Amino acid sequence: MDNKALYNLTYGVFMLATKQDDKVNGCITNTCMQVANSPARVAISCINANYTCELIKQSGVFALTLLDETCDFATIKHFGMQSGRDVDKFTGEFDLSGLPVDINHIPYLKDHACSVISCKVLESHDLGSHTLFIAEIVDAVLLNDKKPLTYADYQGRVKPKPDTAKTESSEKKIVGWKCKICGYIYEGSELPADYVCPVCGHPAEDFEPIYE
Amino acid sequence: MDNKALYNLTYGVFMLATKQDDKVNGCITNTCMQVANSPARVAISCINANYTCELIKQSGVFALTLLDETCDFATIKHFGMQSGRDVDKFTGEFDLSGLPVDINHIPYLKDHACSVISCKVLESHDLGSHTLFIAEIVDAVLLNDKKPLTYADYQGRVKPKPDTAKTESSEKKIVGWKCKICGYIYEGSELPADYVCPVCGHPAEDFEPIYE
Repeated sequence: MDNKALYNLTYGVFMLATKQDDKVNGCITNTCMQVANSPARVAISCINANYTCELIKQSGVFALTLLDETCDFATIKHFGMQSGRDVDKFTGEFDLSGLPVDINHIPYLKDHACSVISCKVLESHDLGSHTLFIAEIVDAVLLNDKKPLTYADYQGRVKPKPDTAKTESSEKKIVGWKCKICGYIYEGSELPADYVCPVCGHPAEDFEPIYE
Repeated sequence: MDNKALYNLTYGVFMLATKQDDKVNGCITNTCMQVANSPARVAISCINANYTCELIKQSGVFALTLLDETCDFATIKHFGMQSGRDVDKFTGEFDLSGLPVDINHIPYLKDHACSVISCKVLESHDLGSHTLFIAEIVDAVLLNDKKPLTYADYQGRVKPKPDTAKTESSEKKIVGWKCKICGYIYEGSELPADYVCPVCGHPAEDFEPIYE
């Protein structure tokens, strides 16, 4: 199997948020598709290790902000490359007081976002690494007329390029490994072959070495 | 709910094929995403009324040809706008003798296609209008280095534009309705408000009038 063949699957880039009592969290995800009509339903896949996934299992609702092509790396890094278990993502630039909320009282992004889709979970299927949620679309709002950001566009244009001068070096010592998908850092010189990124769930082959 | 907000979900365009004994069929679909790792699995959603969906339920295997940006409308029309119950799609230009087959002996397209992904169904969830299949990726082959065709690109560039001179006419009599998504024709002057396209499952608001 050639994993590069799978990179040709087309995805968007979304900020997936939920709210359970006073706990609010959001993360970056690329997996959402409409799967049925009457009523309209979507399926999303969430990494089980993610705090947002844990909260959605409790709340049964989520808001999907569809990021548009003007979205910058800082926003994606903020929501996608740190855990809500460690930091409150809805402070500072993304303070709750400055964000709109959807029909389920879940915050969504108003800038650099073309749609927000509000959903209520109908079914959850535990797939081991991820949980697949099938959810009814209870509301959908068009936010602007920009094009949605695609995952390919994020990878090719929005995400900063690695420092090739360093990564191509063969003389320097490897001190860690960085997930090329989400930026997660594994500390240590040798990455186990069966390692799976705890943030985005991608395998060892999606990591690149970090040199001293 | 604003259905236009849902159009900002990003999809690819695929030729989904299967083979059950001597019955081979393929259709056009836009819903596939990787949903889990170890083993790698995808989810696809198929319209229950489609012959390909019926055959996949029997065969338990499918091949997804990921169409690339050079794919023309004729190919999509051939596989997407007629039923395998009425015609054998694997004749003429797409005769089986001229097509490669995947690991499950299912034909796939070699031209204007960037990847083929071969899958074995693990779970089926009947969602009424559609069935959601969760399937293990048993093989994946990169076919070329072109960019995948996105559904937005198909809608905006590949698909022929309607004849606005005719559709904007208010004096001519309406004799039918055409699904803007898949091209299906409903015969009759009045389309019921709760009508759902029998081919692609889209609602009445996705139909445009056909004038005499």
